[in-house]
Amino acid sequence: MQDTGGSGRETVYTMEATPLKFGPGASEEVGWEVKRLRVSRVMLVSDPGVVEAGITPRIKELIEAEGIEVELWDEVRVEPTADSFQAAADFAVEGGFDGFVAVGGGSSIDTAKVANLVATHPAPIMDYVNPPVGGGRKPPSPLKPLLAVPTTAGTGAEATTVAVLDIPEQKVKTGISHQYLRPNRGVVDPLLTVSMPRAVTSSSGLDVVCHAAESFLARPYNTRPKPKSPDDRPPYQGSNPIADMWSSKALEYGGRYLRRAVADGKDVEARGHMMLGASLAGVGFGSAGVHIPHACAYPIAGLRHEYRPPGYPQDHPFVPHGWSVIVTAPAAFRFTYDASPERHHRVAELLSGGPIENPDENTLPEVLIQLMKDVGAPRGVAEFGYTEEDIPALVEGAMKQQRLLVLTPKEVTEEDLANILRESMENW
Amino acid sequence: MQDTGGSGRETVYTMEATPLKFGPGASEEVGWEVKRLRVSRVMLVSDPGVVEAGITPRIKELIEAEGIEVELWDEVRVEPTADSFQAAADFAVEGGFDGFVAVGGGSSIDTAKVANLVATHPAPIMDYVNPPVGGGRKPPSPLKPLLAVPTTAGTGAEATTVAVLDIPEQKVKTGISHQYLRPNRGVVDPLLTVSMPRAVTSSSGLDVVCHAAESFLARPYNTRPKPKSPDDRPPYQGSNPIADMWSSKALEYGGRYLRRAVADGKDVEARGHMMLGASLAGVGFGSAGVHIPHACAYPIAGLRHEYRPPGYPQDHPFVPHGWSVIVTAPAAFRFTYDASPERHHRVAELLSGGPIENPDENTLPEVLIQLMKDVGAPRGVAEFGYTEEDIPALVEGAMKQQRLLVLTPKEVTEEDLANILRESMENW
Repeated sequence: MQDTGGSGRETVYTMEATPLKFGPGASEEVGWEVKRLRVSRVMLVSDPGVVEAGITPRIKELIEAEGIEVELWDEVRVEPTADSFQAAADFAVEGGFDGFVAVGGGSSIDTAKVANLVATHPAPIMDYVNPPVGGGRKPPSPLKPLLAVPTTAGTGAEATTVAVLDIPEQKVKTGISHQYLRPNRGVVDPLLTVSMPRAVTSSSGLDVVCHAAESFLARPYNTRPKPKSPDDRPPYQGSNPIADMWSSKALEYGGRYLRRAVADGKDVEARGHMMLGASLAGVGFGSAGVHIPHACAYPIAGLRHEYRPPGYPQDHPFVPHGWSVIVTAPAAFRFTYDASPERHHRVAELLSGGPIENPDENTLPEVLIQLMKDVGAPRGVAEFGYTEEDIPALVEGAMKQQRLLVLTPKEVTEEDLANILRESMENW
Repeated sequence: MQDTGGSGRETVYTMEATPLKFGPGASEEVGWEVKRLRVSRVMLVSDPGVVEAGITPRIKELIEAEGIEVELWDEVRVEPTADSFQAAADFAVEGGFDGFVAVGGGSSIDTAKVANLVATHPAPIMDYVNPPVGGGRKPPSPLKPLLAVPTTAGTGAEATTVAVLDIPEQKVKTGISHQYLRPNRGVVDPLLTVSMPRAVTSSSGLDVVCHAAESFLARPYNTRPKPKSPDDRPPYQGSNPIADMWSSKALEYGGRYLRRAVADGKDVEARGHMMLGASLAGVGFGSAGVHIPHACAYPIAGLRHEYRPPGYPQDHPFVPHGWSVIVTAPAAFRFTYDASPERHHRVAELLSGGPIENPDENTLPEVLIQLMKDVGAPRGVAEFGYTEEDIPALVEGAMKQQRLLVLTPKEVTEEDLANILRESMENW
């Protein structure tokens, strides 16, 4: 019973999944779900677009119908900052809520996670932010119940333990990570995404594909050194058989349904599978982790603020998260190919829906580029306003994401990242 | 948002999975896990065999090393009865515990679930037993934390919301089912099964295969009528895409590793995959449900008490659960074949590890029979002492399991069950 291999390598992995309720009409059961969580006063976190679409008012009504008090906070910012998190947290601290419901995309769900965190264990937000940017403080006990109702099919935020924020002053994007941030339940209703614009469908769907592909290709958990204590086991543990199961299914759905969801927003079958895929990929990467494309996405989104994405609200310039990730994926997976050729082939097969003859290092990149073209993704990093001269700054930003880069299945240097970014300026 | 199809059919399914910690040596972290659950006084539930093997004393030591009080209750009976549950519950009520740890097979884990239930919400056990045998009472709030450490690779009890019991007076096996019975965490350590005897490995592994196959072939969730309220949604919802994911992986592992685990108990890779497969299948059938083979297994195990299974302790006659299930599986799946030929082919392919040419209704039964032969399973129902004359009584017992039979993918009559049992007297 004591012999655990003796190699000094990790032998253990863990798997936790947010309980999910899935299906067209599932959101009609939100009132019942909140009641079951024994909550009497809810902070409802949402963003103005989702409120305007009528989704949030309906959810509010459903919760109130169960005799539960609801206060709406609808100032969620797309791509949240420490300031926008703080505003939500202030509201939460003052409101005396005993539960939280988030309705919206990843930004709304992440904002609710942080509002819940700070209201339950008051402290400055930067204390909780991951080091080295923040203090890496850990909440001492579980938070109040949080129910997540996603209205996009991308971040999988309902299934993850992280809240991502942009820190424009430091030109960096980072996050707060802790298992207590995981929502108690996700209610995933494809009917809520029917009105999602085409560009949002494209970007968020490509985020799903990257979550799943990066998780599946992450360094295997049993190549890490064994931790001295379970406390030292990182939240992102590396690829493992259970995470693979979730990621594989998300890749299959991404390959089969993303083009359809982009082409026809009313295709509820495609929407449904993309939403489910987003949650599955969220569970997968919540266990295995993501690496190069996500590490590069942080500076790509954080460094320049001049891209006005076609098909998105034009109130402020920003790079939609999924697009910031996908642009470096083809080059990143060409780079990681030799660490696990079979697994790279498998990702290409799952995405393309069948066996591929004589696959090589270019197979997966080509499958991804075809998908990007088909769903109207940007051609590459250059489209966001970057030139070759920006590469050192982008590399510097990506290198700050060591928490992610350690999940790369082979060693990755600054020069490697520079090459990947250079190849990613224009993917076609 | 209101249009949920309008067909009157179910559109929603839910998925909850016990958080799992998996790997050789994982059980060395049990003390840390119990501490994390904020428990100060533990009832440790186990059976004499596991205690004697030294596993339970080691777990006790690990929990005590964290400064947590532990009282051992080691009177778990293999195939528990209301009386044995009551004895554990009495101990739990008197002990003033704030947490539970189960170490053993499904019997130990189920006993701990019931001890926790009755200690938290005192009531006679029969009040909680599923109707029509018992009162179907529901616990009004969550129970105390329960950590499950399985030492067999079969029941998946660490991942389910049910506790199964035998009621010899009524010649019936039934259960207590409620979501609050789900353990808070499963710690699944393949090193704990290394000493499991060959016959136990065979029976419990075939139980895994049946859990997965029955779940995968269960009536799809969206063929049920839509429930009036979420309260009316049954715990066994029918097959659905997420349950399929878990069941498929368990079938793959069962086909690839069960023969190896039976042939060489020290094959830790095979043991590990069977343990993991047991948990995966537990999650799958906890969502989708099982049907004919499990419904027939109840009277097969409950009606006659004369079979003394080779390779098991000979203190009392009984039919090991996995064997009681597998014996009717070939005939059951020949019967259900025409409800979903493609899905039956898929099960056969997953179990045999590759594509099968020109599959038909006999393909899956043949794959199962080959596996039964290879792992030394009984040839059929006759081997437990039953004759054709017992068929009416066996049918009557199986028909009592309507909770399960409604999951059959086509209508099943008494005559159908009689035919299945007749075909199952000798599978080869």
